[in-house]
Amino acid sequence: MLPESAAVGLIVVAAGSGRRLGADVPKAFVPLAGVSLLGHALRGALSSPGVAEVVVVAPPGWTDEAAAVCRWARSQPSAASAPAAATRRTIGVVPGGAERGDSVAAGLAALSPAVSIVLVHDAARCLAPSTVFDRVVAAVREGAAAAVPGVAVVDTIKEVDATGRVVGTPDRARLRAVQTPQGFRRDVLERAHAASSDATDDAGLVERLGETVVVVAGDPLAFKVTTPGDLETAARILAG
Amino acid sequence: MLPESAAVGLIVVAAGSGRRLGADVPKAFVPLAGVSLLGHALRGALSSPGVAEVVVVAPPGWTDEAAAVCRWARSQPSAASAPAAATRRTIGVVPGGAERGDSVAAGLAALSPAVSIVLVHDAARCLAPSTVFDRVVAAVREGAAAAVPGVAVVDTIKEVDATGRVVGTPDRARLRAVQTPQGFRRDVLERAHAASSDATDDAGLVERLGETVVVVAGDPLAFKVTTPGDLETAARILAG
Repeated sequence: MLPESAAVGLIVVAAGSGRRLGADVPKAFVPLAGVSLLGHALRGALSSPGVAEVVVVAPPGWTDEAAAVCRWARSQPSAASAPAAATRRTIGVVPGGAERGDSVAAGLAALSPAVSIVLVHDAARCLAPSTVFDRVVAAVREGAAAAVPGVAVVDTIKEVDATGRVVGTPDRARLRAVQTPQGFRRDVLERAHAASSDATDDAGLVERLGETVVVVAGDPLAFKVTTPGDLETAARILAG
Repeated sequence: MLPESAAVGLIVVAAGSGRRLGADVPKAFVPLAGVSLLGHALRGALSSPGVAEVVVVAPPGWTDEAAAVCRWARSQPSAASAPAAATRRTIGVVPGGAERGDSVAAGLAALSPAVSIVLVHDAARCLAPSTVFDRVVAAVREGAAAAVPGVAVVDTIKEVDATGRVVGTPDRARLRAVQTPQGFRRDVLERAHAASSDATDDAGLVERLGETVVVVAGDPLAFKVTTPGDLETAARILAG
């Protein structure tokens, strides 16, 4: 168990390209209903009263734009509705690295020593509701080395070999499609990144250390915006 | 290898409830842009010139409605654009059983002896394009006991135990989310259903026989309409 006062720091990874969206700006800066994906992601995160500190990892060359989005997100009513402590939040921007693992490491290094619970969030999951942040933080406070949000898998999943032949069908009832924000005890995430940096999946690094990772309830709204169709879906949800 | 002339029969499973869509009719009869999901599914299937025979497995009490949808689908231009042979197609309706396995078995029993390749399709994957049907049939003709369409998995997948603790992370590059239509050598599917009927996954039954199942390229359009949001997505796609 971590004390109720353990400070939560959030790393928002915003370094992906916008290529698959057909955009000529990095994905986090693609507009959705007049606001960048990063802006939406920050608005969701800042609605979670538990988040004390935020570091946005921006594509190199885009740190000024990211800082402007941070200022906008701070000014939003959803953030202001959080407790007074929220107004004392630190929000910073650092440039990302060549690989996703380098970007997470850069974010980790920028968090203040007070932070003992770290959330890692993908800006492309821009509609993740604050309740998901709350559940992930609660699970780490209660003792999990890491907690990830997950949802049931709709399609049957098959495991194939290099030729496309099916080699197995894992029991679908035991599978979860995982989302972000993912939460970690800070010392555990630091050890995981020190041991390996080829990470598209931070929780996977923690599993390799032999530490416990738990899955908490995710949310369909925390889907990842990857294709133009996803962007349209997100716009339709916001139009409500 | 099966001969190029091997006849293809299609079983369309249309027995699911519309509850999750908030509908008071079975899911296959929920309207989408003025046409039932079953109507869309049949239109896609009949655009595949390879399909010689169709059996719709309807919810008990809905066979007349299903027959009316079949007549409508036959009259559509997309079906007429298939070769002349298409005009000689048999399209029939049978009532489904208590479980999905019973429904597939009822469909199998209704196919004529001439059919040696069987496709099993879910009416809820109502926008599956004819190219997917073509690829599945081709793989069975080329010798696979079974072929299923599959797409890459976007989210990391975790395997959990009963308490929600992660017990494994299968390599995502080797996972495929499988869709329908799924294709089978008829004798193989009959043996599979004789051996076990608790099937939400026909290909899984074939795997248990030790037969080869291959994954061919699926299509994002072959997604399963499950939620009201899916229905809206489908309507948006049709509106183009």
